[in-house]
Amino acid sequence: MNLPAEPDHALAASLFAQLSAHSHDGVGITRDSYGEGENAAHALLAAAAVSCGLEVRRDSVCNLYMTLPGRDRDAPAVMTGSHLDSVPRGGNFDGAAGVLAGLAIVAGWRRAGVVPACDVTVMAIRAEESAWFPVSYVGSKGAFGLLDATALGARRADTGRTLADHLRQAGGEPESVAAGVPALHAADIDCFVELHIEQGPVLDESGDVLGVVTGICGSQRYRHATIRGQYAHSGATPRSHRRDAVVAAASLITALQRGWLALEAAGHELTVTVGQCMTDAAQADFSKVAGRVSFSIDIRSRNRATLDAMDAAVQAARAEVAQACGVEIDLGPVTASAPASMDAALQDMLTEAAAHAGVATRSMPSGAGHDAALFAAQGVPAAMLFVRNANGSHNPDESMRLDDFAQATRVLAAVLGKRAGVPAAACATPFIVSTKPCQSV
Amino acid sequence: MNLPAEPDHALAASLFAQLSAHSHDGVGITRDSYGEGENAAHALLAAAAVSCGLEVRRDSVCNLYMTLPGRDRDAPAVMTGSHLDSVPRGGNFDGAAGVLAGLAIVAGWRRAGVVPACDVTVMAIRAEESAWFPVSYVGSKGAFGLLDATALGARRADTGRTLADHLRQAGGEPESVAAGVPALHAADIDCFVELHIEQGPVLDESGDVLGVVTGICGSQRYRHATIRGQYAHSGATPRSHRRDAVVAAASLITALQRGWLALEAAGHELTVTVGQCMTDAAQADFSKVAGRVSFSIDIRSRNRATLDAMDAAVQAARAEVAQACGVEIDLGPVTASAPASMDAALQDMLTEAAAHAGVATRSMPSGAGHDAALFAAQGVPAAMLFVRNANGSHNPDESMRLDDFAQATRVLAAVLGKRAGVPAAACATPFIVSTKPCQSV
Repeated sequence: MNLPAEPDHALAASLFAQLSAHSHDGVGITRDSYGEGENAAHALLAAAAVSCGLEVRRDSVCNLYMTLPGRDRDAPAVMTGSHLDSVPRGGNFDGAAGVLAGLAIVAGWRRAGVVPACDVTVMAIRAEESAWFPVSYVGSKGAFGLLDATALGARRADTGRTLADHLRQAGGEPESVAAGVPALHAADIDCFVELHIEQGPVLDESGDVLGVVTGICGSQRYRHATIRGQYAHSGATPRSHRRDAVVAAASLITALQRGWLALEAAGHELTVTVGQCMTDAAQADFSKVAGRVSFSIDIRSRNRATLDAMDAAVQAARAEVAQACGVEIDLGPVTASAPASMDAALQDMLTEAAAHAGVATRSMPSGAGHDAALFAAQGVPAAMLFVRNANGSHNPDESMRLDDFAQATRVLAAVLGKRAGVPAAACATPFIVSTKPCQSV
Repeated sequence: MNLPAEPDHALAASLFAQLSAHSHDGVGITRDSYGEGENAAHALLAAAAVSCGLEVRRDSVCNLYMTLPGRDRDAPAVMTGSHLDSVPRGGNFDGAAGVLAGLAIVAGWRRAGVVPACDVTVMAIRAEESAWFPVSYVGSKGAFGLLDATALGARRADTGRTLADHLRQAGGEPESVAAGVPALHAADIDCFVELHIEQGPVLDESGDVLGVVTGICGSQRYRHATIRGQYAHSGATPRSHRRDAVVAAASLITALQRGWLALEAAGHELTVTVGQCMTDAAQADFSKVAGRVSFSIDIRSRNRATLDAMDAAVQAARAEVAQACGVEIDLGPVTASAPASMDAALQDMLTEAAAHAGVATRSMPSGAGHDAALFAAQGVPAAMLFVRNANGSHNPDESMRLDDFAQATRVLAAVLGKRAGVPAAACATPFIVSTKPCQSV
């Protein structure tokens, strides 16, 4: 595989530093969806793209498109990118790495005078982190005209204001979103390849630098489940008279663990997580039987049937525990996202490019959701490249080595270049990192 | 059994109403230990006792003693009483019922011109509810000179100020407390009989009006236990890599339930309660494996060996779960109170008096702790009389019927009168409630 012109690694490094400076909250990185943090990141990237001589546009949900025009402007575009928002007190690489890799690639090509056969577009996608709005894939759904009125009415967890309200304030057009006017059409997209840090420990522990993603998990979530029992004096209430919400929660959680194990034993791949579980801070006491517990359930799998089977186990456990413990268990509203398979040809190309570059790589599923899943669901050939990262994501300690990132960017460039008909560089300089960005912003 | 002069039921009813008016917080009753709520209740009772012609004094921890002098001032005194503080947003009867019953009895005797053979003292005890200070039986320990420097340094849960500080502000003398100067000596006390609402559902469900307490549970408590695992992405972290604090908490809680069942099967009586269990509000998320859970454990039994056996089960479960789940479990500091047996002769007298009055009564243990346990531990013959009460205690819905309270007060009067050599009333008028208090305060 011939390598195209070297990506502008220094530009990426400079933008990582600027993003961090813009969005450090004292503990970690906060780039709130459709808030000050994400808006500033989009402004920074747009300015950088303009400085690099790229075409820049926005759609009605404020996604940012940074395009290196191709010879045939009507040919299906090669797309890459990721999101710029973060969870509260998260890390600097989750999402941003994919946008900066794409920008480094097209900036490098632009500087080298490369004109691809088709447009190559780097997309900075809005609102991927569902910590803010209880809606999955807000930005990519919006790009395809798939955000409905319910989604626009969803309220941000911290501000309590609607998505429509936040969107309008960020310069978007909620009316046009509600009308379902798409900015993207699957037929006009050759492929979407998303680079992202791995959010688990698999690559870091195996020693592989890159992961080629086979599929992206869908989810089934109960974010606001509650158990209602009865508060009672801990010393004066015999077990026979208790309706103990904590005991019920413990029973339910162990039942979910058993359900998870049983499905794994039957060959299913999934994760089941109760990430939040709490007695009521105002009413619970060490000397009271607990009358209320609130909790969340997050089920993820690449297989819809597996999600359904685990959901059935949840329902069965709910009924059984409610009966056994004399409590009411209300799972609350469910939110879900669909699983997606990654394009086999793109997976092969990524694997081949990595092998060509001598970078240790493994095939692996993505337990986390990513916008690439939404592209795949629209019929766009989609793929993902994971970069080794220590300490997980969604926390200030995420730790991607910039030389791993540089290798990943080159592998991504090789695949995007091949899809977009980018010729091999006249003088390819692989593995020598450029130190001068095209222009600091 | 001949009945002494009728208690002043109307005085008690009036004081219940005034206590409620003084200490309603909008939701329930709050009489904070050594705070505004408890101080106001003590002032109200002291004024009422003075109006009734009783001797009133306070000790260095601000317990209130309301005494009807006997013929022999040096003879061991007959004592009754309970506490006046409440949990936050609690009910009006928990504690106060025992003080008002005692006052109604001696006020009735005083009005009838009764002079007992020995002093009869009603004690309003300070700070019984350990919701405020992490020390059991503050007031009765203080009366016997048993509060040490550690206890005086304990901080109130809401204010963060020390017991010594609160005590001084309420007019007490922390220096004298620290010196261990006792206000009470076991040898000077004939008996201590405490009336209290039942805090569980046993009487309410059985139809018995009164309970004669056989023994008072001691406790073994871990109020600030924590599990530390590792926060991780819920989708990207395989089970093999998880150190899930919520799963560990669920395992521990179910292990404690098993331990409780096993001890019961072996003939032990106890309760085991995890009343608080919560992931960290700031860091936990539905899409994260939980890295931290805080929780409490409250074990109660009338038998020290049972407390020790259950504590051993807790320690074993802690080690097992920490190992199995890859987490650290820190149980934190332990607090404990000793179990106590009630005096057999006093139990018989209470049962006999109730039978004489035709009131349905049962013998039962007290799962909750009470100051009577501290008197018993000092070698004072002690007993307790429970009054039927619906909806438990430590909440605004506790519900004692005033006619049940009147019957209980008469039964208590009969026993105190017998111990104090009070002659039967010239014209006993049982079951006719006086409507005029000796004087409204």
